[in-house]
Amino acid sequence: MKTMSKKVVENHISQRPIKKGLVGVVVDETKICSIDGKNGGLTYRGYAIEELVEKSTFEEVVYLLLFAHLPNEYELEEFKDRLIQERDIPDRILMILKDFPRNTTRIELLRTAISALSLYDKDDYNYSEAANLRKGIRIIAKIPTLLAFSHRIQSNLPLIEPDMEGNLSHAANFYHMLTGEIPSDKIEEAFNKVLILHAEHTLNASTFSARVTVSTLSDIYSAITSAIGTLRGSLHGGANERVIYMLIDEIKKKDNIIPWVEKKLQKKEKIMGFGHRVYKNWDPRALILREFSKEFCKIEEMNTPEDGIDNLFDMVEILADYMIKKKNIYPNMDLYSAPLLYALGVPPPLYTPLFAISRCVGWVAHSVEQLKNNKLIRPRLRYVGDSNKKYVGINDR
Amino acid sequence: MKTMSKKVVENHISQRPIKKGLVGVVVDETKICSIDGKNGGLTYRGYAIEELVEKSTFEEVVYLLLFAHLPNEYELEEFKDRLIQERDIPDRILMILKDFPRNTTRIELLRTAISALSLYDKDDYNYSEAANLRKGIRIIAKIPTLLAFSHRIQSNLPLIEPDMEGNLSHAANFYHMLTGEIPSDKIEEAFNKVLILHAEHTLNASTFSARVTVSTLSDIYSAITSAIGTLRGSLHGGANERVIYMLIDEIKKKDNIIPWVEKKLQKKEKIMGFGHRVYKNWDPRALILREFSKEFCKIEEMNTPEDGIDNLFDMVEILADYMIKKKNIYPNMDLYSAPLLYALGVPPPLYTPLFAISRCVGWVAHSVEQLKNNKLIRPRLRYVGDSNKKYVGINDR
Repeated sequence: MKTMSKKVVENHISQRPIKKGLVGVVVDETKICSIDGKNGGLTYRGYAIEELVEKSTFEEVVYLLLFAHLPNEYELEEFKDRLIQERDIPDRILMILKDFPRNTTRIELLRTAISALSLYDKDDYNYSEAANLRKGIRIIAKIPTLLAFSHRIQSNLPLIEPDMEGNLSHAANFYHMLTGEIPSDKIEEAFNKVLILHAEHTLNASTFSARVTVSTLSDIYSAITSAIGTLRGSLHGGANERVIYMLIDEIKKKDNIIPWVEKKLQKKEKIMGFGHRVYKNWDPRALILREFSKEFCKIEEMNTPEDGIDNLFDMVEILADYMIKKKNIYPNMDLYSAPLLYALGVPPPLYTPLFAISRCVGWVAHSVEQLKNNKLIRPRLRYVGDSNKKYVGINDR
Repeated sequence: MKTMSKKVVENHISQRPIKKGLVGVVVDETKICSIDGKNGGLTYRGYAIEELVEKSTFEEVVYLLLFAHLPNEYELEEFKDRLIQERDIPDRILMILKDFPRNTTRIELLRTAISALSLYDKDDYNYSEAANLRKGIRIIAKIPTLLAFSHRIQSNLPLIEPDMEGNLSHAANFYHMLTGEIPSDKIEEAFNKVLILHAEHTLNASTFSARVTVSTLSDIYSAITSAIGTLRGSLHGGANERVIYMLIDEIKKKDNIIPWVEKKLQKKEKIMGFGHRVYKNWDPRALILREFSKEFCKIEEMNTPEDGIDNLFDMVEILADYMIKKKNIYPNMDLYSAPLLYALGVPPPLYTPLFAISRCVGWVAHSVEQLKNNKLIRPRLRYVGDSNKKYVGINDR
């Protein structure tokens, strides 16, 4: 009887409600990250994001997310060493990056390079949890190198090798490979905090795609490749890039904001940097990034937009104020990460892939969690097309 | 009030049931394909699979799945021409395939090559439906070339260029590129039917991953790359490969089957080639492939296993009979496609990627359908980990 009733549930999908976008559907349990959409709370492994941003480093947060506890001094040193040892990439992968056409988005290059990297991983055919973590750590370590190399190749700049001596932190090493400069303590700290804030956010679309991919018992590289492709879309990782172009290419001046946004809303167009599937008022990450954004956009020696464009932070504040008051829609973190990344001197084509440097940690943690107690993720579609069509020979069509 | 109640639904996920694996959850409507798990029915755009396998060609089925109607003579000729024109791949992609290490799975090469192909697509930055279909058709046309090239490079065999003159059908051209031989009519027909049967199957895991990826408004190449990575797993496309190794490496003899399967079941191990999330008795594709498998495994000039291994079809029949009678678990199509592909001379490392040659049609059709009326696919996870953990300085851990 038990089997029969299961069959009925499975098959009679025509009577079941459609959960478009799977809004509110709970697919599994997790011990990685909690978000409280109503009260704006976010924790990684039970630790409040505000505390981690204030007191922790990116490397420590990676360890926490992957191994479920804060490392002691020995564990952290060893883990940092592992990350450093894995910063380099195979020569053949570098050759491919050099051969690819110019004017390519960095995220397409990253998606391709991560997929190719699996071919050089000595654990490629080992699907154990330990091997999956090893592969995941290699991916986390190598993504900054892949991204900095891709960007400098595409920009016809000489490459800067990763620091294999371990003098530079994950954040500082990326900044150095990207810009050729050792970041000031202040910039390194800001980068660290940006990376911590983007590292994990439970079941966003890219993380979900990683879990769907490994749920067939596929491998970690496939999962991360799927996640990067999913991150690319403008409804996800692509959003911060679009915020900066909205500010510097479209709005430009504080005085333009109200007429610009009113026109957009009249045409029922989406305003980038606002709204979230889960947070219905303030996203706690947006609040933190807002403070950093404010601070860095006001420092004179930071990167500033060309003449004729107002202070980026001032512009997003006016926009946020309008949207909250008039539409009751709150800013998400993309609204504030874009001006901050601009001030930090990150080129806009890197905003989306920069997200991957950090979020790959969540992708790995979730892939490993999915495989601990796996069930193939495979929902249904309700068929609403024609039925009983009769095949007609080609001469009678 | 309406907004309030939406918030409650969104946030109070701790009270909602967990739909692990999203079993039975309906995520959207579709007009592409219907399956009736109870009665074993399968249609593409309303046409019964049995009729399409009997009367149609793969190219015609591709057109039907993508454009929702059977083509007339002119449309079909034009469409076949388009597919032929797109059979070649960029030189740089071939160079990459040659440079990759040997002993690599063909599916990893395919995942990487498809991701790289986007860099050479002139529609790369065009996200319109028409452009998505153009990109999809290019992918469908090029996958056989990528796969045959990869396989022959990995096997140190000289490459055989795709037939750009259009003398060979999609199926025959792939067979020729793979083996160097023009297939007999009988083999070509069998290949055609295998391709038709694998072209589409509504929301399987790989198709779902394609829909999740484009639901962020990402691109078709990202979607197909995700799908290939998802297909790779042994609970999905990886299954047919495992069936053949089970037969030729483990079981070998008809007499071994019963003791082998009893031992497996005692250890609660999964028997490859059985069971399906939706079909609870016969999968209609399995029934069709069973007939072809029977026919081809009995023809003397077909590829047969080495001495000491019994007829593959005879073996799977004994296994199927046992599983149905003793366990009430029915064969899926992998059980019968594996012996058929073996008889047709397809090397086992190609079974999983061969699935991609065909299923990419469904992936493209579903990606396009998802984008017609898109909603970001983003379910939830219920947090069951620790809460309110207090950050402790590293010296106190």
